[in-house]
Amino acid sequence: MFVSFVSSGPGDPDLLTVKAARLISQADAILFDDLSSGPILALARADADLVGVGKRAGRVSPKQDQVSRLLVDYAKSGQRVVRLKSGDSGMFGRLEEEIEACRAAGIAYEIVPGVSSPFAAAAAAGIPLSRRLTARRVQFVTGADITGGMPPDLNLKALADPLATTVIFMGKRTFAALSSELVKAGLPPDTPAMLAESVSTPDQRITRSTVADLGAALAQAHDGPALILLGPLME
Amino acid sequence: MFVSFVSSGPGDPDLLTVKAARLISQADAILFDDLSSGPILALARADADLVGVGKRAGRVSPKQDQVSRLLVDYAKSGQRVVRLKSGDSGMFGRLEEEIEACRAAGIAYEIVPGVSSPFAAAAAAGIPLSRRLTARRVQFVTGADITGGMPPDLNLKALADPLATTVIFMGKRTFAALSSELVKAGLPPDTPAMLAESVSTPDQRITRSTVADLGAALAQAHDGPALILLGPLME
Repeated sequence: MFVSFVSSGPGDPDLLTVKAARLISQADAILFDDLSSGPILALARADADLVGVGKRAGRVSPKQDQVSRLLVDYAKSGQRVVRLKSGDSGMFGRLEEEIEACRAAGIAYEIVPGVSSPFAAAAAAGIPLSRRLTARRVQFVTGADITGGMPPDLNLKALADPLATTVIFMGKRTFAALSSELVKAGLPPDTPAMLAESVSTPDQRITRSTVADLGAALAQAHDGPALILLGPLME
Repeated sequence: MFVSFVSSGPGDPDLLTVKAARLISQADAILFDDLSSGPILALARADADLVGVGKRAGRVSPKQDQVSRLLVDYAKSGQRVVRLKSGDSGMFGRLEEEIEACRAAGIAYEIVPGVSSPFAAAAAAGIPLSRRLTARRVQFVTGADITGGMPPDLNLKALADPLATTVIFMGKRTFAALSSELVKAGLPPDTPAMLAESVSTPDQRITRSTVADLGAALAQAHDGPALILLGPLME
């Protein structure tokens, strides 16, 4: 009984790790999130079970405990199970709950790390994520919690630091409120900002702006996954 | 004239991206850092130029402007040039200076993102880097600047937040001083800590401790690259 938690990276199959590509191509069953689907699943065996367990816009998504139960059931069947998770599997991805379910059921697991989407976003923009003198700290945060609202316990002072690169995951809907809090906490409104949509996919779009003006870009945002980067981003 | 800045990931060739592996196997010339050498370079063509430009313990390392000049010279020769950089190439890796050199010389470039070592460290420990309720913020920082000392402008308040996962790169030598500052700034001394050495290589070693007690693990540390993780790390 074994589960491989496999990071899919940001979406481009070329940004899978060599190990992830191999495990996907060998798996008997792949439980995947929506964001990690598409061309990556084309690497799976024709007879592999492909089971979508992620959220879809406009549909009810399976509850986390159902996903965990399904994962355990597949593993118990003795199949080679890949749990494919978007970006890096351990970053804002409910990996903790699924690990706990595996441990409780006596199922061994491995985690295959991957390319987290902020790295792909910066690469797509042609810039580094950190800067030697002006952004020696890089921080990732979720802009929405499980309710879709702004998480209650954000460290605004830490996030408002103009000497850091700050990456907000799942932050489109709450950015207006969050950015107003950040400016109140000391982040200059003219701090560079970048909206990175559907990174590494054919729908990729990178829009550069400032904290004060990013709202206009967000009003035009696509439906897909997006990151917001703030800080002394390289031009 | 073109340069591919290629992220090598933490060291295991299996953790290269598919794209990185392909570019390395096709390159005419590879300028590599020490950390990204070893088995990854075995993927290069037998007739490729392999040029080490990284730091080596006990030897004078090439100055950054020399590295940039060499990179530009190789690109101007019209060869397929890979600049191989450890971890993710845009994370604390002087990518900015090399991009500036390329731009100044009119050389086009691409950045191939990769697996940054904290993701591999957490995966090796069997845990996620973020936690849904207790570590909604993940921050990366350098523990040493170019002089080898603690950077002068660290945001200690942000780094001392017990509700974040904090990863310190290049922090072995300054951890005693830094951790004392963090505790003064409010980080509980019993906060979980992890030393992750030579992640994803045969020398990998993961040592779990606390902020107060990590000094003992550091006294036994190997010479190789190491990360220090602090925060409410999953057990």
